[in-house]
Formats: sequence, structure tokens, C-alpha cells
Amino acid sequence: MKIEMYQMNPIIGNLKYNTQKHLEAIERAKKDHVELLVFPELSICGYAPEDLLLHANFLDAMSDSLDQIVQASKGIAVTVGLARRSSRYGEKGLLNSAAIICDGVLLGFQDKWLLPHYDVFSERRYFSPGREIRTWDIFGKRVGVIICEDMWQNASDIAKATYPRDPVRELVVYKPEILVNLTASPYQYMKLDIRLKVCQKAAETLQCPVVYCCQVGANSELIFDGYSMYVSRDQKLIKLGKGFVEDRIFVDTDLTERPLNLTFDPMHDLYEALKLGVKDYFRKTGFKKALVSLSGGVDTALVAVLAVEALGKENVTGYFLPSKKTQSLQKQSVKELAENLGIVYHELQIDPIVEAYGAVLKKDIQDPSAKTLESLKSRVRGALLMAFSNQSNALLLNNLNKSEMALGFCTLYGDMCGALGVIADVKKSQVYELCEWINRRHHTIPRSTMERTPTHEERYHPKHGEEGIEYLVIDKVLKGYIEESKTVQEIAQEGHLEESVVEALIKRIYMAEPKRRQSAPPLRVSVKSFGIGRRKPLTLSTRQIDEIY
Amino acid sequence: MKIEMYQMNPIIGNLKYNTQKHLEAIERAKKDHVELLVFPELSICGYAPEDLLLHANFLDAMSDSLDQIVQASKGIAVTVGLARRSSRYGEKGLLNSAAIICDGVLLGFQDKWLLPHYDVFSERRYFSPGREIRTWDIFGKRVGVIICEDMWQNASDIAKATYPRDPVRELVVYKPEILVNLTASPYQYMKLDIRLKVCQKAAETLQCPVVYCCQVGANSELIFDGYSMYVSRDQKLIKLGKGFVEDRIFVDTDLTERPLNLTFDPMHDLYEALKLGVKDYFRKTGFKKALVSLSGGVDTALVAVLAVEALGKENVTGYFLPSKKTQSLQKQSVKELAENLGIVYHELQIDPIVEAYGAVLKKDIQDPSAKTLESLKSRVRGALLMAFSNQSNALLLNNLNKSEMALGFCTLYGDMCGALGVIADVKKSQVYELCEWINRRHHTIPRSTMERTPTHEERYHPKHGEEGIEYLVIDKVLKGYIEESKTVQEIAQEGHLEESVVEALIKRIYMAEPKRRQSAPPLRVSVKSFGIGRRKPLTLSTRQIDEIY
Repeated sequence: MKIEMYQMNPIIGNLKYNTQKHLEAIERAKKDHVELLVFPELSICGYAPEDLLLHANFLDAMSDSLDQIVQASKGIAVTVGLARRSSRYGEKGLLNSAAIICDGVLLGFQDKWLLPHYDVFSERRYFSPGREIRTWDIFGKRVGVIICEDMWQNASDIAKATYPRDPVRELVVYKPEILVNLTASPYQYMKLDIRLKVCQKAAETLQCPVVYCCQVGANSELIFDGYSMYVSRDQKLIKLGKGFVEDRIFVDTDLTERPLNLTFDPMHDLYEALKLGVKDYFRKTGFKKALVSLSGGVDTALVAVLAVEALGKENVTGYFLPSKKTQSLQKQSVKELAENLGIVYHELQIDPIVEAYGAVLKKDIQDPSAKTLESLKSRVRGALLMAFSNQSNALLLNNLNKSEMALGFCTLYGDMCGALGVIADVKKSQVYELCEWINRRHHTIPRSTMERTPTHEERYHPKHGEEGIEYLVIDKVLKGYIEESKTVQEIAQEGHLEESVVEALIKRIYMAEPKRRQSAPPLRVSVKSFGIGRRKPLTLSTRQIDEIY
Repeated sequence: MKIEMYQMNPIIGNLKYNTQKHLEAIERAKKDHVELLVFPELSICGYAPEDLLLHANFLDAMSDSLDQIVQASKGIAVTVGLARRSSRYGEKGLLNSAAIICDGVLLGFQDKWLLPHYDVFSERRYFSPGREIRTWDIFGKRVGVIICEDMWQNASDIAKATYPRDPVRELVVYKPEILVNLTASPYQYMKLDIRLKVCQKAAETLQCPVVYCCQVGANSELIFDGYSMYVSRDQKLIKLGKGFVEDRIFVDTDLTERPLNLTFDPMHDLYEALKLGVKDYFRKTGFKKALVSLSGGVDTALVAVLAVEALGKENVTGYFLPSKKTQSLQKQSVKELAENLGIVYHELQIDPIVEAYGAVLKKDIQDPSAKTLESLKSRVRGALLMAFSNQSNALLLNNLNKSEMALGFCTLYGDMCGALGVIADVKKSQVYELCEWINRRHHTIPRSTMERTPTHEERYHPKHGEEGIEYLVIDKVLKGYIEESKTVQEIAQEGHLEESVVEALIKRIYMAEPKRRQSAPPLRVSVKSFGIGRRKPLTLSTRQIDEIY
């Protein structure tokens, strides 16, 4: 059978746009003599629609879209993803379903069984689990259809899944000749080979090829990398969709094709993920222009490079906001970077404004603390950037990294300003790796920026009586505690650190929770970001967090 | 049987503090000859512990706390709430349980069946549902024990619950003589009589009295009002715990007592809820001092009154930050309010700072737009307030109301600054009602403040070419669309509004989503706040929101 996976980039909630894309794809596929056209999970509304699913009108409109798609499917088979009402099962009355359509007839629905509900996933908030499984007769072939997570319990050892049921296993008795999976699986650093293993395991269990069609595109915090896959009955990777762009992947299940080796460059993928995150945030919200802060450091340089690649240099404006203390080397680094990127940048001195604040405050604050002054400077910069944002209808991009966000090395309403936390899920050590990767490809980021080691930065310097903390130490704790859920003892031992250092850092992570609650949404690229997938109580004080780790 | 409900105020995550409170309560109860002491839901960790439940050490520590409580329970029966591991059921391996302890022996656990998963509740993220029910022999009585939501399906007509099972109904065959319910039910405006009806329904179904012990206290956005209840077998309200404070409620199931009438003043409760929200946020995070902005308007006045009552006048400092345009009447209102409250306030002119910004910006922005200027002024005020916050280690309270938050009548990093959105779930019309209620009790808020109608405020005035919108219109749409999930047509008809006006306002609500994502956490007092219980995609543009409502 000739199958096309349409690795589509939907706009969440924009049913007209998404439906039009379905109809065009169906026409295209017919011309290319495709027999079965596969769309990703929830393709009509995009993943994740969140609380839009609570609106009756939205569900009605999705049902209307399906009718149009069914009408358009004469002479072809199509599987599309949608949310639909059903009073049959469970408390929520809503199912995450695949509609199976053949030659203009809606054969029925396959409902998702395994509803992910952890980290960034909230499917139990909306959906009841499906309970039935079968195969579908599509042009004489027995095709099994499942949705995303439904395949993961079957590979529970790899996927660490603990669902009570395994739809793949339950499909065995129906002897499918092809398994189709409609998926929306967010990118995270180094996840691709796990997905392949999960596909291979399903092919092994069912003794049939697996057609794994993924959503692509970024939606707020979540980035979907695409990379749809076709795995043969003998568990070989035969086709791999492109990463980070829409793609049409053609498969002929009757042919024997040469297997591919799954090779990927993790840095390339991380870079492309962030770029797509920026690009789609602007495209989908209808903004064109971005503002970036330039400081001469690696974080601002990385965000500027990403912005230029995502939006075009003509749409990016830089702002260098020095104070008296700023060194001439920084100025030189900023100039060089802007020239390399071909972007306009403005330079504005913050001191007159800081002094104006000082004059107004001095009546009540005779001797401002270092923290007060440092925060004030940061807020002056934030307000200047936001003035340009308001004036030009451009979005400010935030450049705080994950290590800073973790420990609260940032100022609310100051350097925390911005519409999107572009690198807020990228650890400082990864910022360096990415900058080096960028420079290997094309020397863009000035040597002076790369050589300005972060231990020399104010942020990582001893201040307010604290000990200085090297970013490599921070990143070890961040990786161990936040991303890998290890204990203090494990992190200390593996990282050759004192337990007291690890504990002190974890405490700081908790204490920064209220700050992060007001941060720009972070583009998620790791297994655990500080965004919607992290939910910690705000009313924790140092007194009580001893017991948590 | 002599029963005590201990309506406790736990600190989330502070197991030492909470355990100590359990042990003290047990000693106290023994002295008072109590036979059965009932704690609220998840009493050992507090509700809601959120992702703290994902830490193994936290679960271990909870289990240790339980051991201590069992040890201390010689000569008394106790039911306490905790989270516990169990590999027996489901995918999550964690249960929301009540431990039933009698005379120093842990009789067993009753696990929660119905796991709320909507709005602010995320129990399916952590817990698997319980599957068994029974009664427990406590000093010769058959006692049924259930947890919170478990009672609501039985009153599904009142509670609008749609769970597939009903633990109360399934308990009937065990013929309990008493039903105990461990609860953590957040306050919302006008919810109290629904709770009573749910208790009455259970009493009717089981033909036994209902002991309904509630958590009290505020945890970040959620406020728990207490008001524990005892309903007799003949469905009469016999005892009612106090609202908004810890309480010990004594019940003797063998006595026939005179029923109470459930009367409550909704304004009093709303006021007390907000007060407790402020008080507990400070107490639990370890802060003492608050800063409030004073403008001469009702919103700042209300927040100042709440802050003074919650924290004491000695801990509240006011800031009046006028510009050249500020009228002398406002100054007079501020002075009068501060005197009435007995708080210190500082006055600082923002113009010199705004001018300093203007001078720095004029190189690049010759003709700042009204939006740029208005936002800049708001950010100068925000930065001044935050400078005082940094300098004095005091938390800034935010005074934006729900009507402003809904439509985005607010400035990011400007008047959106603050640690807590004290009235961010209070509609403008309710702000007036509350202020009038306060003044009836004791004339605190100046007449000039009350008479300064919001249609005269800049916010609600035509600006940027928009039509002016009366706050009463805004509040009708807000109530209909956000709080009652009505359609445009219904809201227009019931409110005597043009559908186009309703649509335009709803569009604005969606467009303000990214702003609200960075707002201070709002104290939740309505059925639907703009806090953790609302999850909308950020990448919505005006193009696509037509289909949603």
C-alpha cells in the first residue's frame, strides 16, 4: 500500500487554517496516487489545545471540519486526529481520537487509550481513555490505528511507562498488516533514538511495519520536531521525515527498501528546536519583529543569532544598554556581533535614568543596598527595552538561561522582561556548546564574547556575601536534581561535590519558585523545564524545604 | 461517640510543622475525652502539595510522620490524610488516602476514589483512584471514611459531577453508623450552601450522620475557608466550624442537638478569604512586611485595607507616586485613607524619572505613542515600588482587579508588579461592593475615593481610538463567559448587550493571555480565576479566536 505521512504544522485553535491544510494535503496526495494519507495526533485542532477543549463551540467546529474532510476523501483513505464527544465512556465525555476515513466514508474512530498525564501533559484533564481496539479494512489491508502514547507501554522498559494496559499487545490477535500511529511528541534533547526503539518494539510485537506520523512546529513552550518514521516488519528504520519542518514522507509497504542509519547531531537539533520555537511563536501570534538585548555575553549573542535565523535580520533590532561600569571590550563585542549578523542596534546609556531614580529615592532610601541598586539597573534596562517594544509593536526576546532561572540569578521586571524565554531551558554549559557549534558552522559570535568566562561575570561572582559558584557545578546539580530526579547523595557522589553544596543549590532552586512563576514562557528543550510541566507550591520557605530532597 | 474535627491549617510541604500539629492535637483531644479525632484531607502534607509528591524523600518522610502519629494515638482513634505509595493500583503508584488509626494501631487505609481533575485540581497527575470501600470498627461503631470529592457523585445533580462510580452509594451495604469525610475544598464565592447540600445528600443515602472536616488556610492561590460541618442522620446541620480560622468542632453522635440555620454573609466571607490569602502567603513564606501602592482609587484602597487587617498596620507601608497630571483630590484621598488606616506612606514624584527616560529615548524615539508613554509611567512606578521592596525585604502587593486582568488593562512590569494578586479574581463591581461593605462596618475608605467613578478613570476611558467600556458591561461578560461558560448569544441576551460588544470583549480576554501568564499569582475566590486553573494556548491570534466562543 502506498502511504503518505503528512508531517503537519498546525496552528492551535485555528480550525479554519488547519482544515484547509487537510483539504489541500488530500488533493495533493490523490494526485500522487497515495492510498492512505496519515495526519498527526489531534491534527484538526493542533496539539495541545488545552482549555479550548472546554468550549462546546470549539468541539462543534471540529466536528464540522471532520465532515469536510470526509467529503473530500473520495478515492483515498485518510486518518486524522481530533477531539470528540462521547457519553459512552468515563467522566470527561471527551475522547482523543483518530477518525478512519476510506473513500469518502467515515469508517469509525479509534480512541486513545493511554492518556499521558505528567510533566507538560494534562490529557486526563480533558479526555476519558478509549477501551476498544480493532483493525480497519483499508483497500483490502488490515490496518491498526493507535495514537501516540498508546505505543509506549509496549516498550515500557525503554519508555518507563506504567500504564495498566498495552493497546499494542491487545492488537496482536487482530493480526494487523500495518500499524499507523498518529503522534504529537515534543522535542527534547536526545529523545529521537528512544522513539525509534519504541517503533521497533511495536513492529516486533505485531510483526508488521509501523507508520509513525508526527506533528511538527512550536506551540508556546512546546516544540515538536517532526522526524516521522517508517519502520519495517523486521524492525529496520526505512524512512525518516525531516526535522523541524513540514514534510511529506512516502512509504510503499509492498516494497523492500534499504534501511537507514539513524544519525543525528544533538547540537544541530537543539539549535533548530530553539529556532523553530522562536519562529512559530511569532508566526502564530502574528508578530514579525523582535528586539534583543546585546551585552557582549554569550547568552545575548545566542538569542540574537537564533532571532536572526528565525525571523530574518531585517526583523531583529539589537539594544546595547551600557552603564558607566561597562567595559569597552563589551562594546566592541556587541559591535562585532551586530556586524556579523547584519542587524541594526541602538546604544543607550542607562546612568542618567539610574541617577534620576536615585535622586527621587534618596529622600527615603539614603543608602541603597547592592541588591536594590543592581535590581534597579536591571529594571531600567527592562523598561527601555519595553518602551521600544511598545513603540514598534515588536516582541522582546528574553535571554536568561536555565542555570540563571534555576537559582534566581535574575531580576523580576528587569532582565526577566520579554515575551519568550528563548534559552530559559538551556543550561549555561549548553549555551557555550551551542555558541561553539554556531561558530564552527560560521564564525558569528566574537572571540571576545566566547572568552569572557562566566566566572568573571557579575552573576557568578561572590555577591551579597555569598560564595561564588561555578556554572559547571550549578549545571551538574540542575541536571541531576531537576532533569534526572536524583537524590542529593547521588548528585554529590557522581559530581564529586560536597553534599552541603548540592543542598544549598537545591534550596536556592526552591526559593526562586515565585520569581519563575512570573517569568516569560520558556521554550522547552529538556526532559524537564521550568515551564508548565513544573508545579511547585509557592508558599515554601527555607524552613521547610529540608525535607523535600 | 465523641468526635472532634480538627479544622487545621497546614503548611504545604512542611512535614515537621504539620506533624507537630497532629501530635499536639491528639494530646489535646485525649484530655478532652475525644474518642475519634478527624483531620482534613492530606493533613500531613497540606493540600495541594503539587509536584512535591514526585520526590521519593518527601513520600518517605510522610510515612515517617504517620508512624509518629500512630504511636501517639494510644487510647484514641484518629483519621489523618496522607499520600502513600502503592503498587497495587493503576499507573501512578500513589494514592490519596486516609489512615484509620485506633488505640495506637493502624487499622488500614481508605483511598480516595474520585480524583478531581479540572480547574485548579490535578489529582490524576499524581494519584491512582482507590477501588475498595468498607467500614471501620472504631470503639464498637461502624464508621465509613471517605475523602472530599468521594461524596460529590452522590449529589451529582447539585455538584454536576460525572464520575462513573459513587463511593457513597457503594458504602450503603456496609451500613455505616457514621460517615467521616476528610476534605480540602477551596473557598469560592457562594459555595457554602452547596457543600451543606452534598453532606445532607450523603446523610440521606447512608441514613447516618456526616462528619465533614475541612482544611483551613491559604496556600498560594488557593484559599480554604474551613466551615467544617456536622450533619445529623435526619439531614440537619448541627455544627458548623468557624470560617477562615483553625477550629476544633466537637460532636457527640449519641446526642440529639438543636439544628442550626446556615446563614452567611457573602461579602464578609469574600473579605475574610482575601485577608486570609494575604496573611497566610506572608506567614508561610516567612515575610512580614508589605508594600502597597496608593492612588486614591478603590482598588488600591481595598488592597491597603486588606493588608493592614492581615498583617497589622505596623507592617504595611503605602506609596503614593503621583505625576504632574495627578489631581490634588487624589492626594487628599490617599492622605485620608492612610490616616484612617494608621499607616505610614511615602510620596514620590515620578516625573523626573519619566523625563530622564524621555531624554535617553529621544535619540531613537522622537514621538512616543500614548501606549509607550503610559506604559513607561506605569513601569517607573513599578520600579520604584520594587526598589523599596528590595531595600526593605518587604513584598509588594498587586492591586489589579479581575476586570482589568481580563481585558489586559494593565502594564507588564508596571502595575502588574507584585508578589501576590490580592484582588486579581475580584471583579470591579465586587471591588465596589467590598469597599461599601468595609465602610458600613467602619468608615475607612474616603468618600472621594468611592465617588471617583471608574468611568472617569483613564483605564476605562476611550484610548488608542477605542470606545470606552463601562465596567459593568465588562463584568457581565466576565461572569458569563469565564465564570459561567455561557455562549455569546446567552450573554448578550441576558445582559441586554450587542453580540458584537460581547464578542469584542471576549477577543480581548484571549489577547491578554500572554500578559496574564506573567502576572502575580491571583488569590482565587471565584469559580474560575485567571490563575493555575486556566490553561489556554498562548499562540492564539485574533485571526483564529473567532471559532472558540
